Amino acid sequence: MTARITALDTYDVRFPTSRELDGSDAMNPDPDYSAAYVVLRTDAGDGLEGHGFTFTIGRGNDIQVAAIQALREHVVGRDVAELCADPGSLNRDLIGDSQLRWLGPEKGVMHMAIGAVVNAVWDLAGKRAGKPVWKLLADADPEWLAGQVDYRYIADALTQEEAVALLRSGREGAAEREAALLERGYPGYTTSPGWLGYSDAKLTRLAKEAVADGFTQIKLKVGANLADDIRRMRAARAAVGPDIRVAIDANQRWNVAEAIEWTRALAEFDPYWIEEPTSPDDILGHAAVRQGVGPVKVATGEHVQNRIVFKQLLQAGAIDILQLDSARVGGVNENLAILLLAAKFGVPVCPHAGGVGLCELVQHLSMFDYVALSGTTEDRVVEYVDHLHEHFLTPVVINNGHYAAPTAPGFSAEMYEKSIATYRYPDGVFWAADLERNTAA
Amino acid sequence: MTARITALDTYDVRFPTSRELDGSDAMNPDPDYSAAYVVLRTDAGDGLEGHGFTFTIGRGNDIQVAAIQALREHVVGRDVAELCADPGSLNRDLIGDSQLRWLGPEKGVMHMAIGAVVNAVWDLAGKRAGKPVWKLLADADPEWLAGQVDYRYIADALTQEEAVALLRSGREGAAEREAALLERGYPGYTTSPGWLGYSDAKLTRLAKEAVADGFTQIKLKVGANLADDIRRMRAARAAVGPDIRVAIDANQRWNVAEAIEWTRALAEFDPYWIEEPTSPDDILGHAAVRQGVGPVKVATGEHVQNRIVFKQLLQAGAIDILQLDSARVGGVNENLAILLLAAKFGVPVCPHAGGVGLCELVQHLSMFDYVALSGTTEDRVVEYVDHLHEHFLTPVVINNGHYAAPTAPGFSAEMYEKSIATYRYPDGVFWAADLERNTAA
Repeated sequence: MTARITALDTYDVRFPTSRELDGSDAMNPDPDYSAAYVVLRTDAGDGLEGHGFTFTIGRGNDIQVAAIQALREHVVGRDVAELCADPGSLNRDLIGDSQLRWLGPEKGVMHMAIGAVVNAVWDLAGKRAGKPVWKLLADADPEWLAGQVDYRYIADALTQEEAVALLRSGREGAAEREAALLERGYPGYTTSPGWLGYSDAKLTRLAKEAVADGFTQIKLKVGANLADDIRRMRAARAAVGPDIRVAIDANQRWNVAEAIEWTRALAEFDPYWIEEPTSPDDILGHAAVRQGVGPVKVATGEHVQNRIVFKQLLQAGAIDILQLDSARVGGVNENLAILLLAAKFGVPVCPHAGGVGLCELVQHLSMFDYVALSGTTEDRVVEYVDHLHEHFLTPVVINNGHYAAPTAPGFSAEMYEKSIATYRYPDGVFWAADLERNTAA
Repeated sequence: MTARITALDTYDVRFPTSRELDGSDAMNPDPDYSAAYVVLRTDAGDGLEGHGFTFTIGRGNDIQVAAIQALREHVVGRDVAELCADPGSLNRDLIGDSQLRWLGPEKGVMHMAIGAVVNAVWDLAGKRAGKPVWKLLADADPEWLAGQVDYRYIADALTQEEAVALLRSGREGAAEREAALLERGYPGYTTSPGWLGYSDAKLTRLAKEAVADGFTQIKLKVGANLADDIRRMRAARAAVGPDIRVAIDANQRWNVAEAIEWTRALAEFDPYWIEEPTSPDDILGHAAVRQGVGPVKVATGEHVQNRIVFKQLLQAGAIDILQLDSARVGGVNENLAILLLAAKFGVPVCPHAGGVGLCELVQHLSMFDYVALSGTTEDRVVEYVDHLHEHFLTPVVINNGHYAAPTAPGFSAEMYEKSIATYRYPDGVFWAADLERNTAA
């Protein structure tokens, strides 16, 4: 009997992080880290489910849930084996829904919904194959893997033939790199010391702890007040010494000229990269900033909407560091396109993570890239933030500043049922009690 | 007593246009033209309401409605007089909602929702002032109008001081142009002959009718099949003769290389512009296409997400024609930024229209531009499609291929209550009966 997808269930999960100022930056003063969460269920009888999500920061998580639900008809009823053997076919169907496409195309709410569903399929595919997604990708036939990418609108920069060649050459020495990955893990960096809402004392303490924990890079949020940033950057540099990389992140706060001026004003403290200096849509703006702030590197990507914008950032020489996000674009398939573009242009990928479950997901992409595509971890680090991992069945494990390679099958995407039941909005245990407290007050 | 906004009501309105193949093109084979419709109500006691909408093509209209509802808390309770005296302040608040911003930023579902609400405010402002929106804008003080624009992310191309100067110089001779506008109207062009689903005979008949009706430009959908396009383009050119402009529209169907090749293959029929040759996100791709297809002009904009992408299309010399859309970006305020950018770069604006109510809205923007900004209609035409106007209280009026200037106060955005009651989805009279028929069948 053919096993089929029987349900696409969604959950509006919100964590009250704004109450602690965790995650505060120049553009996001009070985020409530949230997940528009999706579970694919089957009648295979093997107990396996596909889990995925879009990360949001609170209000609007319900809109994101509605967008995921709109994809249900494309998924429920599919043959599970066929779907897991070719997630790219679903990816193309979802992107190609002409009526839903009008709401993007390939950007914002609707595109992130597609990413959540596609990632859930990869989670299921990994579980069925008994492999973590990084290994599923690393072991895959290069021809098949290249066929998982949608080349529409990027063929002027990357053809399927080039992708096959990159993936074939990426396989040379893969076994040795896999062994090294399992032994040492993949390098991370930490943003935990640098949130804008933290005091200098907390920043200094956390920065020293980060170095003691084995991290070789930390990151500071900047962009609200230059005098404060100079003081905080001085404190951070004093705390970690000259050999630790200190990146700075403006979260899109500036126009082009401001970005150049502000970054130059911090240059004496040797920032490694300036992240999101301006709008993620401004390819030419990033190119101008890069011209203006060198040798400080320019990094962006967590809000870059799709492979088409990444393609142009690379074509225009606008970035030194590409920061893909596991749940902003159309899922693993589109991120595969982005990793291939980065490999072709020789630009290091240092993914965005943090939020809810983004570290859990994105580690798989960087580990695949190391084992079977770029073949290196040089100048490559995955962001690490110590938030909300306790809600996941197989949370990330950090040893000596490195992400340990996950061994559990799937995409590390699965949240505890109890966490969902507690933080489901607005009727989960926490929010219902919160509402009652506020009503009583 | 201060009058306040008392309600933001939404309606999911869908017209079953897919049953007639009206609106069919290479990417949108079966659109059901729809509106996520919003009404702002007040306690002013003057009977005036603000109406606005996002245009969609069917599925997903409910997601768009949910996004508009998420903005309710920013609008309800506002002082009506203050709001109408400064719609830009609401525009900035809506764009600046840090949690909702994560869902874009400034693109897709969430940004179109902002556009619907901002446009509804301008509708209300026009009604309260007793002026159509084009005249409200044309009569406005240049300093005030320049202050309605958000310069974030465009200041490298347009400063507020430059905007003031452009608007001041646009006022010279405005009275004469207003008189000319009221007498002759604003030139339009028609897409009605060229839908992909139409037969050659229907195309030929409608093209001849368009010329007889006074249009000097028509448009054909292309991109599904080259042999068909050559045949259809030949028929169209034969029908209208050499002096009528025939634009072609690929609706994003192609990669860069295909766009160049396909357009060149149609060059013998002298297409005036190629519209949406590739992804609306591909600024550098459009620049490459423009290099490859001249003297055929390159046009795009109906899916361009915001002023930041338009800025770059202009900076990169990627387009000959800028096709803003009244309801894709963040409303009148952002379209004012786009008109100013176009004026600064000297690129003609030929807005996208059609759909549901897009002609009604966008005519105001072009008429303002003629009277008080660019000061010319040379090489400028507003798209006209003869669909669904009957649902509006003050539908567009076309005389001799020109849009007659609206004289009714407001933004021409108001739909008949009966139309909403009939086509509200899924419980309006039409859809309820349709569901019953399908259930019975």
